[in-house]
Amino acid sequence: MSSTPRSGSGSQAALRGLNTAALVRTLTAAGPQLQADLARVTGLSRATVSNIVGLESAAGRMRTERVLRDGRWGVRVSLVPEDWIVVGIDVGRTHLRVAGCDTARRTFGDREVALDQGHAPEDTLRLASQLLDELVADAGFERAQVRRCGLAVPASIGRDGAVVQQSVLRQWSGQDLASFASGALGIDVVVDNDANLGALAHAASAPGGNDGTLVYLKVASGIGAGIAIGSEVYRSTSGLVGELGHVRVVDGGQTCYCGSRGCLETIASTRSVVADFERAHGGHAVLDDVLAAAAQDDAVALRIVAEAGDALGRVLAVVCNLLSPDVLVLGGPLASVGKPLLDAVVASARKRALPAAIARTRFRVSEFEPRAEVLGACLLALQASGIAQGTITTK
Amino acid sequence: MSSTPRSGSGSQAALRGLNTAALVRTLTAAGPQLQADLARVTGLSRATVSNIVGLESAAGRMRTERVLRDGRWGVRVSLVPEDWIVVGIDVGRTHLRVAGCDTARRTFGDREVALDQGHAPEDTLRLASQLLDELVADAGFERAQVRRCGLAVPASIGRDGAVVQQSVLRQWSGQDLASFASGALGIDVVVDNDANLGALAHAASAPGGNDGTLVYLKVASGIGAGIAIGSEVYRSTSGLVGELGHVRVVDGGQTCYCGSRGCLETIASTRSVVADFERAHGGHAVLDDVLAAAAQDDAVALRIVAEAGDALGRVLAVVCNLLSPDVLVLGGPLASVGKPLLDAVVASARKRALPAAIARTRFRVSEFEPRAEVLGACLLALQASGIAQGTITTK
Repeated sequence: MSSTPRSGSGSQAALRGLNTAALVRTLTAAGPQLQADLARVTGLSRATVSNIVGLESAAGRMRTERVLRDGRWGVRVSLVPEDWIVVGIDVGRTHLRVAGCDTARRTFGDREVALDQGHAPEDTLRLASQLLDELVADAGFERAQVRRCGLAVPASIGRDGAVVQQSVLRQWSGQDLASFASGALGIDVVVDNDANLGALAHAASAPGGNDGTLVYLKVASGIGAGIAIGSEVYRSTSGLVGELGHVRVVDGGQTCYCGSRGCLETIASTRSVVADFERAHGGHAVLDDVLAAAAQDDAVALRIVAEAGDALGRVLAVVCNLLSPDVLVLGGPLASVGKPLLDAVVASARKRALPAAIARTRFRVSEFEPRAEVLGACLLALQASGIAQGTITTK
Repeated sequence: MSSTPRSGSGSQAALRGLNTAALVRTLTAAGPQLQADLARVTGLSRATVSNIVGLESAAGRMRTERVLRDGRWGVRVSLVPEDWIVVGIDVGRTHLRVAGCDTARRTFGDREVALDQGHAPEDTLRLASQLLDELVADAGFERAQVRRCGLAVPASIGRDGAVVQQSVLRQWSGQDLASFASGALGIDVVVDNDANLGALAHAASAPGGNDGTLVYLKVASGIGAGIAIGSEVYRSTSGLVGELGHVRVVDGGQTCYCGSRGCLETIASTRSVVADFERAHGGHAVLDDVLAAAAQDDAVALRIVAEAGDALGRVLAVVCNLLSPDVLVLGGPLASVGKPLLDAVVASARKRALPAAIARTRFRVSEFEPRAEVLGACLLALQASGIAQGTITTK
């Protein structure tokens, strides 16, 4: 880093602090500037400006974009104003979760409410809007400071922005969801599949960045995976990715809502696990009953969870053979069972995958559960607003 | 594109031709130049120089690299000298194939010889060296003009360059193959898995570039897949990718050489198909006998091929659910069967994959078979020599 005529300190760090302050002053006074102009105005070398802008961008305090000026490409630098925030919404079959996130990637005020199955998009978004108003106000922001909203849905989004068919949210199919939600919320909305956003949340939070392949498997009423390769979420042209819930694991098994038989979801989804628990124990149950029974070492509950884990591992063995991922994160409500599920998944996958393909794969239960999807939605909204990926923290 | 004082022609193409010639003259006379200096020396605008360099680089006639000069990044432009070539080697369990390729991505002189099973690396590389000498001489080049060699092997290559265990080429395991082959051939060698290179060959040759996900499935004595996402071949940290041959398709099936049972390779590899044909027809057979019988509508051969296709499709259905690829290319010796195999694969995969995940996937038999791997090896060697991907043609 080069020095400047202004600074008398010998310390590199002190020098960088002075130089950074000079850039911030200029950007505050004059607004966004070309990097080349910043060097000229401040008298700092181009290398110094470039270094500082790089460090500040990585820390989320500056933002750069390539712009065309007089027929040449330049880099325009802006301060990331601390006075705007983004919000994330995670819509499931029977839940709605919202959270806020500031430009330093600190999340705040997340809250969840239960929804009736078959909830209508307009009702759900109206409710989300109310919840967002509350959490924004509680955090001391104005609604006008909400720059963008990330929306996680248990459905695939095509390149045209429409929800692709065969979602567990049938009533949302075919919608141009981003436009619809933008209209309903009065905020710019970016939308993505919930498992993709779960993968994004975990990849962004890997210490030093995600340097390999991370697979996030969400086990809820549906079962889907998101894939992050380095810092990028894998996306297909069709919009569908990670539809592991509809891999056949039992020939001639139960009929699935997709029309096929013996799909993974007929054994390992929360719906199937609860139904199995009801059949075995008799009477009505919800997932919390299964989780509580498993926590108390109830043999029936543990066996049902182990069967689900075995089926999940059978499919994940194929994923390991194909992609040899570095990290495999189990998320979604069933992952709350913890060790009994994880152990069954790992044993089943290791038994079936080629040893060398799975040897390096680190399996774990999501540390963000049940917030992974809404955190991913916040990160997506930050990304769309020009803030690079990085570790997300809780305020 | 801006005009120059020198050119009087009104036609854009003629103008571009004159401007290109001016740049080539300068680069020929003075050697590699910064793009900014090229503009200054020739009097052409920066935009014109940038346009032409872009077009010529895409055509493989110029090469650019970012260089640091006086603390600033610039783009250095070189002519791609037509006087060097690369070669590709494809080593299989029982074959060796070599080819040459010039800097305009035109391949020449490919030839194949049969190898004994269990061939030793040093013998195979000595033979490859002899074959390369012949093909280089036949094409009118000197051995000294061979800049680099791409090497395709039916094995996984770790990040450290070593062959990872569990390859069908057991005798090659653990070797730092690139170093070993470089020493044996006296040429710089870059090495990769054969299915990865098959995927590279097809992705590079997609009209307008590969814009989605392409999966190349090689069905030989082993079964493996390569994945190209856009123009990039997917690589895992472990080095293993696409180990679909060891996905279990029959519970309690035949023992596989990997130690597991009922692996895809026990049903759909060329070894299994030939063994099944021998059992059904009696007597000794080789793959060509099966291919010939299938071509003559032999019911037994067609049924064995259909069984293999059904098993392949069962595993590819999972691949489609996971990645929803745009293109799925069948390659390797069994793919030479053509339609009977393709039809069985497609029917099986479509029956089992989620319809929306497979709807856009275009299945085809490789148009390069049996040359896909050696073409990919040539492209890898060109890439390592600074020549961008693009359509490969036959001289």
